[in-house]
Amino acid sequence: MMNWTLAARAEKMNPSVIREILKVTEKPGIISFAGGLPSPKTFPVEAMLEATQRVLTHDGRASLQYAASEGYGPLRDWVAHDLAKQGMQVDPDQVLITTGSQQGLDLVAKILIDAGSRILVETPTYLGALQAFTPMEPTVVSVDSDEGGVDAADLKVKAPGARFVYLLPNFQNPTGRTMGEARRAAVAAVAAEAGLPIIEDNPYGDLWFDAAPAPSLASRHPDGTVYLGSFSKILAPGLRLGYLVAPKTLYPKLLQAKQAADLHTPSFNQRIVAEVLKDGFIDRHVPTIRALYKSQCQAMLAALTREMAGLDFTWNTPTGGMFLWARLPAGLDAVKLLPKAVDKNVAFVPGAAFYADHADVRTLRLSFVTASVDQINTGIAALAQAIREAQEAL
Amino acid sequence: MMNWTLAARAEKMNPSVIREILKVTEKPGIISFAGGLPSPKTFPVEAMLEATQRVLTHDGRASLQYAASEGYGPLRDWVAHDLAKQGMQVDPDQVLITTGSQQGLDLVAKILIDAGSRILVETPTYLGALQAFTPMEPTVVSVDSDEGGVDAADLKVKAPGARFVYLLPNFQNPTGRTMGEARRAAVAAVAAEAGLPIIEDNPYGDLWFDAAPAPSLASRHPDGTVYLGSFSKILAPGLRLGYLVAPKTLYPKLLQAKQAADLHTPSFNQRIVAEVLKDGFIDRHVPTIRALYKSQCQAMLAALTREMAGLDFTWNTPTGGMFLWARLPAGLDAVKLLPKAVDKNVAFVPGAAFYADHADVRTLRLSFVTASVDQINTGIAALAQAIREAQEAL
Repeated sequence: MMNWTLAARAEKMNPSVIREILKVTEKPGIISFAGGLPSPKTFPVEAMLEATQRVLTHDGRASLQYAASEGYGPLRDWVAHDLAKQGMQVDPDQVLITTGSQQGLDLVAKILIDAGSRILVETPTYLGALQAFTPMEPTVVSVDSDEGGVDAADLKVKAPGARFVYLLPNFQNPTGRTMGEARRAAVAAVAAEAGLPIIEDNPYGDLWFDAAPAPSLASRHPDGTVYLGSFSKILAPGLRLGYLVAPKTLYPKLLQAKQAADLHTPSFNQRIVAEVLKDGFIDRHVPTIRALYKSQCQAMLAALTREMAGLDFTWNTPTGGMFLWARLPAGLDAVKLLPKAVDKNVAFVPGAAFYADHADVRTLRLSFVTASVDQINTGIAALAQAIREAQEAL
Repeated sequence: MMNWTLAARAEKMNPSVIREILKVTEKPGIISFAGGLPSPKTFPVEAMLEATQRVLTHDGRASLQYAASEGYGPLRDWVAHDLAKQGMQVDPDQVLITTGSQQGLDLVAKILIDAGSRILVETPTYLGALQAFTPMEPTVVSVDSDEGGVDAADLKVKAPGARFVYLLPNFQNPTGRTMGEARRAAVAAVAAEAGLPIIEDNPYGDLWFDAAPAPSLASRHPDGTVYLGSFSKILAPGLRLGYLVAPKTLYPKLLQAKQAADLHTPSFNQRIVAEVLKDGFIDRHVPTIRALYKSQCQAMLAALTREMAGLDFTWNTPTGGMFLWARLPAGLDAVKLLPKAVDKNVAFVPGAAFYADHADVRTLRLSFVTASVDQINTGIAALAQAIREAQEAL
């Protein structure tokens, strides 16, 4: 007889809906627009190889030893310097290196959410954030949102008493949408006036196609924002390297939570990436990712225009990032469509998983970065065919 | 005006006492017995270099991509196979790769502790475990313990209603003590009878000097134990690689907590270590660590016998691991002694930090693995001098 009594929070945790859905899509030869995987073509394997050799040869023992929970000094310096380029004034002491930016969400949840705390999210929002917040048992409230992001007026109504609002202003996951200058100014003003903390998640901000997005919310509301960044989309996700930038009043608690969570992020990875980043590598590397993703996005937009002609199927036009957001004809449900699409060797993520409540079942997320242009053409044609057949069966 | 309202758990989190104490010890030329750092001499830099080259050359893109939350298949297989060597029957599906075994403690805390849950620990216990459990707001109860570990009779008294007992049976941090066969059998019997889950932490078990410790608690109570292992002490801590082994009923919740915490442990690190471990590397490497640590332990024991002669200063004789545990003469307090020892260029960790309650202020932890034999001789002589002076000042 074993008494494994689970914590109440464990009962609220659920398998990743996406994960479960993606199991359906694991079949050989499928063209997947489902995953959020950066294109492996963009991974700087050669630079990693050289940097690893240098680190292990010159600082091998230090790179393999325990290290400070705050992170590796030169990497924290690099982050502060890089953020200055986009107008943020950050002291390296405010930078905490995390095991991916997902860990930043976990740490924020631990120090800011009590059971029943009200927290605000966009509609729809990043599923991984909901998963990180849920174990701390918040009450999640969706704020009205449109193609320009969260609605400032509704945010103002819902701000009182909320612990924070979680926002992903650049090329959002799942929608690919970006907040413009005016919206950012309005949202920052509401937050400052209401004393509402902002958790600003920015994994995709460097992946713009033609122009950088407007300055961050953190640059407008620095004492009221925890900013999360990541090396997953500009270098490689398998390193699990991210960071957060916190107001100095909040930093010590985040640091304690970090230390309790995993002592520190691998010193090996931190030193290798600091070595890769030397001498302006990112300034040469990221433009190649932008060009690739832009061309693939254009290919998908063209394929959608061509293949969805005559269908009540709509989509947005991202200006960067990895995803676009689409909506099926009335009467269709993306969850029900998925197995039919998989039968035709194409996969996507139904949008319902990304809503804290009141899901729009017609929505779906399409990644344009993992599949090749040829696969995009074939896959979108197959998707259109699946939609037509589903519509005829209504 | 900013309303950073902290969660109740954040108010309970405190800076690592050890971390604060160790700041005192950060002076040039100090001989430190304080840290829990493996000897960097033991880090397999050459093997890491070769493995990294092979992984990046042959599987570069896969090693840099997102990966499964459970961990890298070949590494999970290796863990299951390695545990079989010590009598544990583990399916690779029960193995979850974690970002250091510290993360295992965080995941366990999340799924098993509600605010106010009673959890049981040894006296004294690993401070990092207390730090991992505290954010989930348990009531921590110390179980009577002696040089053979936790007392089975007191465990039986305190078991009813407890969520789990946390035990570190091999070369415990901080005491260096090890549970013998009879004690393990008694503790496992109490746990099985009471339906009391065991969290068994085993970072040091491979570091035995002359004979392997008795079989794990998990091998005796498999359905009732979560077993935590680590590569930090047999390879290198800077990789942040550990694992847990859980009963199949509990595994899905731990996996969900893992996914929410950091998606997965770096695939880069997992593939490199799996490559290092091929072809029996550990069986050649670990004996060199054992021999080094044994010789350093013997040097410290000899120095203590020599330098503490005539003092009411006692210590134990570890049979493996990294630490020994000592007790100052009556009337002395290790926290007060520390700055005086630091003045003489030697540092240790006061034992009080490791007690959940009713600390014995005379105790202290000495690591014998980081300092050289010469430093051990000099440092123990300086410590004895500090104790003599403190005693004279009473």
